[in-house]
Amino acid sequence: MRLDAQSRGESALIERIAQRSRDLLSAGRLAVVQGIGDDTAVLQAGGQALLWTADMLVEGIHFRLDWIDPRSLGWKSLAVNLSDIAAMGGVPTGALLSLALPSERTGGWLDAFVEGFIECARTYATPLLGGDTNRAERVVIDVSVLGVVSAHPVLRSGARPGDWVLVTGALGGSRAGLEALLASDTAGIDLMPHFRPVPRVEVGALARELGATAMMDLSDGLAADLPKLLRASGVGAVVFPKQIPVHPVAYRWAQGRGIEPERFAMAGGEDYELLLTAPPATAQQMLEQIPPQTGVALSVIGEITEPRELWLEYPDGKREPFALAGWDHFTA
Amino acid sequence: MRLDAQSRGESALIERIAQRSRDLLSAGRLAVVQGIGDDTAVLQAGGQALLWTADMLVEGIHFRLDWIDPRSLGWKSLAVNLSDIAAMGGVPTGALLSLALPSERTGGWLDAFVEGFIECARTYATPLLGGDTNRAERVVIDVSVLGVVSAHPVLRSGARPGDWVLVTGALGGSRAGLEALLASDTAGIDLMPHFRPVPRVEVGALARELGATAMMDLSDGLAADLPKLLRASGVGAVVFPKQIPVHPVAYRWAQGRGIEPERFAMAGGEDYELLLTAPPATAQQMLEQIPPQTGVALSVIGEITEPRELWLEYPDGKREPFALAGWDHFTA
Repeated sequence: MRLDAQSRGESALIERIAQRSRDLLSAGRLAVVQGIGDDTAVLQAGGQALLWTADMLVEGIHFRLDWIDPRSLGWKSLAVNLSDIAAMGGVPTGALLSLALPSERTGGWLDAFVEGFIECARTYATPLLGGDTNRAERVVIDVSVLGVVSAHPVLRSGARPGDWVLVTGALGGSRAGLEALLASDTAGIDLMPHFRPVPRVEVGALARELGATAMMDLSDGLAADLPKLLRASGVGAVVFPKQIPVHPVAYRWAQGRGIEPERFAMAGGEDYELLLTAPPATAQQMLEQIPPQTGVALSVIGEITEPRELWLEYPDGKREPFALAGWDHFTA
Repeated sequence: MRLDAQSRGESALIERIAQRSRDLLSAGRLAVVQGIGDDTAVLQAGGQALLWTADMLVEGIHFRLDWIDPRSLGWKSLAVNLSDIAAMGGVPTGALLSLALPSERTGGWLDAFVEGFIECARTYATPLLGGDTNRAERVVIDVSVLGVVSAHPVLRSGARPGDWVLVTGALGGSRAGLEALLASDTAGIDLMPHFRPVPRVEVGALARELGATAMMDLSDGLAADLPKLLRASGVGAVVFPKQIPVHPVAYRWAQGRGIEPERFAMAGGEDYELLLTAPPATAQQMLEQIPPQTGVALSVIGEITEPRELWLEYPDGKREPFALAGWDHFTA
């Protein structure tokens, strides 16, 4: 599986940092259940587990101010963190917001940003508890979220051979919006999947209750994220591309350009849908309960295997390795 | 009391954000004891209180890479957050590190940064539990720290008339280093107080145990920070300038330039010493126990008064308002 340059660079940085801090992990005053390496850190506090995460958004890297409106940016900066809490099966408790802003962004722009942030905070009952504001030449947003889970969180490492692989919602919508923006060709394209991701907090908590064995959120795209889950669990998988739920926006975008929609959807980052695994009986239960209770679709897209390999399997039985040719122009 | 432009702007931003989020404070899943407005947020989790804070450092605003070495910057970026935990009387539990880095800072520079961060983390038993790394044109560092306190944290709001006002360590050392750097006149100047602040974690926990009524850390300087504590507590104070402990580096810097050392020390930011209040009997106990147990000096510098005013009182009994003339050229 090839990662794009951005992700590969980031992984190396994270590994560099993780290596130097691993021996410190045992020294905390709350028991550390999980340090670097999952969607959130996990700390034991009495009977409950605390979930803790932070995500930074940098102008020019993660967003362009001539593209995204401040209200959507405020929503998104919190939503991507709530998605990490959801991916552990937890519920959010509060947020800290650190902002670096050029002076021309401190008036109405900031008001709209905070309104979007608070709109998301209100929707997911996540009060803003503090933070830090600073001047800078470019906008940098760092949000930290704390969550709780009453029993054990769902880690990336619990997938077992025979488990089914499932995803929530539909994939590729955010990437289609991004491609449209890059191509200055947004007429008729719904940019909301790109600007306003919906964290799957309710689904994540329900999936944990029902017995999901592994879970993570799709921030870098299925093609980049599924291998992380498999590596953490020490397993492989077969994915059925024709069962991948393609977002309507992605479908239209890909088809109009002669790209196979499912491949486009697999390469699409920033969907913030959940990727999870469960034994077949549990997965069946999820398929019955999750769409009705939450209104969010759930799709079976593959199966976990013992061999640590990753294959695509088509309806005619043809298999090919997951690292696809014709992929590159999406991940430049 | 006049604040400098940077602090005044930041206060307005924080107020703008706080106002819009206040009504959300009751919605969290852990009870929120304290939201925006103290050194950290406070959440109740079973029998203990969780302390939670974040601080962002921006290249060109908070530090210059041609001045500070990466190892010191790593130390400082964690230390300023630990200082917030100390100011509540808590102990740190873990940290998240979000970094935005230009590509030329991802090799040896990053290694040295992480070493300094981990050196501080090890000293204060604060494991690095996760975070986020990103590319950017300039270095931005955001650190979030979680701490715990077994009983109640010490807030800014508990000072009562008759309490003594105390500070740890000595003031002005960091500002003297900054002034020397700005003047390109660092020969013979110890820059460590500016580059490597020492969070007073042990002293803060002990002061809480002994019964401190209010506490905060000195990040913006006594002249800017004391009024915050007084406002939060709804009281005033008399400060005895001649009892203010002046850092030797600050003393030499100020004297060499014809500035009254105590005034310089009061205006000096980034000392990260603790400012606290306690009834006289409790304060006496602190004066006996804290220097011997911790090796950190503790000085009585004033007294809390009922009238919400702030005065300087000299040994000859002369009083003047705290907002000093001749102050301005330090707070540009």
